[in-house]
Amino acid sequence: MVEVKFEQISPADFFYRNRDIAGFSNPSRSLYTSVRELVENSLDAAEIGRILPNIIVELTAESEVEGEGTSIYKLRVEDNGIGVDPNYIPRAFATVLFGSKYGYKQNRGTFGLGGTMALLYGQITTNRPATVISSKGGKEIHKFVLMIDIMKNEPRVLKHEVYKNERKWRGTIIEFYLEADYTGSKAKIIEYFKQTAISNPHASILFIDVKGRMYFFPRATDIVPEPPKETRPHPVGVDVELMNRLIANSKEKTLLSFLVSNFQRVGEKTAREILEIANLPIDKDPKKLTHEEITNLVESMKNYGKFRAPDPSSVSPIGEELLRIGIQNMLKPDFIYVVQRPPSSYSGYPFVVEVGLAYGGQIPPIEGVHLYRFANKIPLLYDERADVVWKVVTEKIDWSYYKVPKIAPIALVTHICSPKIPYKSVGKEAVADRPEIERELVIAIREAARQLKLYLSKIEKKKMTIKRLNVYAKYLPIIVKCSAELTGKKIPDISKLLAQIGIDEKTLRETHEKIMKEVEEKYIISE
Amino acid sequence: MVEVKFEQISPADFFYRNRDIAGFSNPSRSLYTSVRELVENSLDAAEIGRILPNIIVELTAESEVEGEGTSIYKLRVEDNGIGVDPNYIPRAFATVLFGSKYGYKQNRGTFGLGGTMALLYGQITTNRPATVISSKGGKEIHKFVLMIDIMKNEPRVLKHEVYKNERKWRGTIIEFYLEADYTGSKAKIIEYFKQTAISNPHASILFIDVKGRMYFFPRATDIVPEPPKETRPHPVGVDVELMNRLIANSKEKTLLSFLVSNFQRVGEKTAREILEIANLPIDKDPKKLTHEEITNLVESMKNYGKFRAPDPSSVSPIGEELLRIGIQNMLKPDFIYVVQRPPSSYSGYPFVVEVGLAYGGQIPPIEGVHLYRFANKIPLLYDERADVVWKVVTEKIDWSYYKVPKIAPIALVTHICSPKIPYKSVGKEAVADRPEIERELVIAIREAARQLKLYLSKIEKKKMTIKRLNVYAKYLPIIVKCSAELTGKKIPDISKLLAQIGIDEKTLRETHEKIMKEVEEKYIISE
Repeated sequence: MVEVKFEQISPADFFYRNRDIAGFSNPSRSLYTSVRELVENSLDAAEIGRILPNIIVELTAESEVEGEGTSIYKLRVEDNGIGVDPNYIPRAFATVLFGSKYGYKQNRGTFGLGGTMALLYGQITTNRPATVISSKGGKEIHKFVLMIDIMKNEPRVLKHEVYKNERKWRGTIIEFYLEADYTGSKAKIIEYFKQTAISNPHASILFIDVKGRMYFFPRATDIVPEPPKETRPHPVGVDVELMNRLIANSKEKTLLSFLVSNFQRVGEKTAREILEIANLPIDKDPKKLTHEEITNLVESMKNYGKFRAPDPSSVSPIGEELLRIGIQNMLKPDFIYVVQRPPSSYSGYPFVVEVGLAYGGQIPPIEGVHLYRFANKIPLLYDERADVVWKVVTEKIDWSYYKVPKIAPIALVTHICSPKIPYKSVGKEAVADRPEIERELVIAIREAARQLKLYLSKIEKKKMTIKRLNVYAKYLPIIVKCSAELTGKKIPDISKLLAQIGIDEKTLRETHEKIMKEVEEKYIISE
Repeated sequence: MVEVKFEQISPADFFYRNRDIAGFSNPSRSLYTSVRELVENSLDAAEIGRILPNIIVELTAESEVEGEGTSIYKLRVEDNGIGVDPNYIPRAFATVLFGSKYGYKQNRGTFGLGGTMALLYGQITTNRPATVISSKGGKEIHKFVLMIDIMKNEPRVLKHEVYKNERKWRGTIIEFYLEADYTGSKAKIIEYFKQTAISNPHASILFIDVKGRMYFFPRATDIVPEPPKETRPHPVGVDVELMNRLIANSKEKTLLSFLVSNFQRVGEKTAREILEIANLPIDKDPKKLTHEEITNLVESMKNYGKFRAPDPSSVSPIGEELLRIGIQNMLKPDFIYVVQRPPSSYSGYPFVVEVGLAYGGQIPPIEGVHLYRFANKIPLLYDERADVVWKVVTEKIDWSYYKVPKIAPIALVTHICSPKIPYKSVGKEAVADRPEIERELVIAIREAARQLKLYLSKIEKKKMTIKRLNVYAKYLPIIVKCSAELTGKKIPDISKLLAQIGIDEKTLRETHEKIMKEVEEKYIISE
């Protein structure tokens, strides 16, 4: 008999062994991922407090070589967000799966491990501790020097100092060392800041790179976006596990009141109808439901089919206007059409899809479509081809139907926002093809594409008209001249006639000059 | 001040909340992922015991609709592997991150959560328990009916029965219900079995689908592959955390003996050299090293640069011959070239890259390259474009340099095997672009592509020769005939002359017939 050794590993150990799944594959991508995880935490920490974010990111190289290829860097991210309670700091930054973002609310962070993973990566590549300095704006500033006990998934506090907060500073500073490659990630990092500034026009971001170069992305608006609210789950797509948890945490004594108080969009009338479908009495104690009854209740809710769309207050879209301005600034196209879909939901989570389709102008023509993907206001720059948007754009949309040439100056900006983005990987780079999200994307893109088709048809028509008019402008005067000579009559004034069919003197002159130039080039110069 | 609620969640809860990252995005993909996770566990359970695997997978639909679209299915996977110790069964199948595959050894499973995730997905979509029946071939068969306590990450055993094992049965049967879509995943599932049979020719796999259709993949060889061995880490790419763990678990009293006994490819001479670079005494107690000294030791090992290639005994490649046969059967091409690279390593893990390049024959021409990706003998069918192979093939290889036309009948089979595949996602579908793996792929593919270039040049040359010969065969007899008529001489026998330039009577006749046919088609029939 073969003996097999079983063991239980901690979540920190799991991510240490499998850091690729969190986006820490190589020194350049690890630097990129570290920057974005910390910047996104900073944006969340400002948003929750309705603060206009000021974020300063500073990267310094330690060795003489100054950031050529892989070497040791110091990354420092400072924000003016709400700060972290000192009781939570060690665990928040040095324990995997300890976080504040597990609720029903839209955050940039999702997994409660991005910041910790960055520090963990720094620790295993440099063996140095990280420093976290934070204040909630009160009397004290707390400074922690930390390492992660990976096997136990626990913080190891090496130093804890408390300072007087005389200037009432509020925010968080994180500073740590990591093995990284700035040369290989510079372009992505700058692009990340650029796109982040577009989807977060209320943020001010300053990036100081290894050579001391400053990249400043000033805020474009002083309006703080309404912070998304925490909501109850929507009943469509709820699963048995969630139902069990809600029942376990509920104090309601009847099924009727349980349903009404635990789900959004469920009033008394709806609750009664659901319970009737499930064949369950309205006054039954939810804690006394059997497994079968719970499954039955979940199925009935899934099949009810008459719920109002989920409450969008837990979702914070970019908005049509800001999206349009962002696209205009970023791409400078001739055509923009923006669609914001009404809220929909998957697995009890509401979500909103926004898309902007842009064409022409300064967009460089490509085979396919330039994609700019955003999720919860953060840009996704890697793994484009694993994303649901790529699937929709390449498999579900027949661009030729919308008169888009094979090689065209076309760009698509998509934004998916939700209290829960179904990322495919912990690295948060690609969104999974949940059917509900896929459907919304298809509808939104088709709507925009129809508008593009109209636009392209108009362009085409205009071109055809000009072409046709050019033919008139070219031959009519010659025919008139010849006919007059043949018949011995005076050359009539045809400018009125030309004006009737839409050709003015200027077009006539220009066309004539163009023809003469063509003739010269073809026949005279080439001789 | 804004108060933020922090909480710690269990690994099971993490994967329940984020099942997309483990490949459970939608009902069709979830079925596919469930099948493959369980089949891969079965293959591992046979390999570890040097058993020829017999695997039976059965899918039955529960409802009347019989598997049209999304509905409840029962999935049953039976194997003849080594079985699971009854003391471990509940945790092995109902605890996330409890597993037997965390060592330095090549397994199909990696994360210790695939099987548990399948059961977890089944539980949350159907609220039904799973059944696990297993025996190690001894006197007893154990049957467990299980659910997962997701919040606690613990098994809940609903039933445990022990039967007499009169027929000395050995193996494991897993049976559970899940919400799935077979229509949407059928093609992928069949393709998965087909490719699995190619990379595991010693396995017999029977799949019985919803309609009772049997798909049988018989074993092609009775030779059981040498099971990969558990080895010590290779010193190149070792990190500080690993060094700390090895020191903590070691009983060696000097750095010299510590290095020799904990790493492969480190003998006394090498160990002395490393310690000299690190400026550490050979008789120092490893447990007394400071943080700085450990970092220093790790850096010195990284920079040593003279280690022999890692011990390949922990790696089990497919082998050039089996790969060639597999490609021949699967693709039926005109050209195959197979490359097996010598073992290399990343982060202390050895790995081997094998590639097979195929061209022509029954391969349908495409723009780009047909990719067939394998990792540790399992096919990877999703997320192709997120894979390092895709990156290499599209960004690092200039196919036109190798004379490959833009649209060509070309296919590339890649196999990466390692005790640790750096998957990008827990769904095990795409391999991350670790620079070491990328480099090996580039070298292997370039070597194969050079052979393809030679082959294509030969083909091209042959074509040109035939074309030229055809010209002779076409005109020479006519010229001879005309010249003879003009000069009034007898038509000479030119067959010897033609034979000298490589044209035989047959080619001559065929060419003549071909010309006559062309002439007829062009001038006579069209009249």
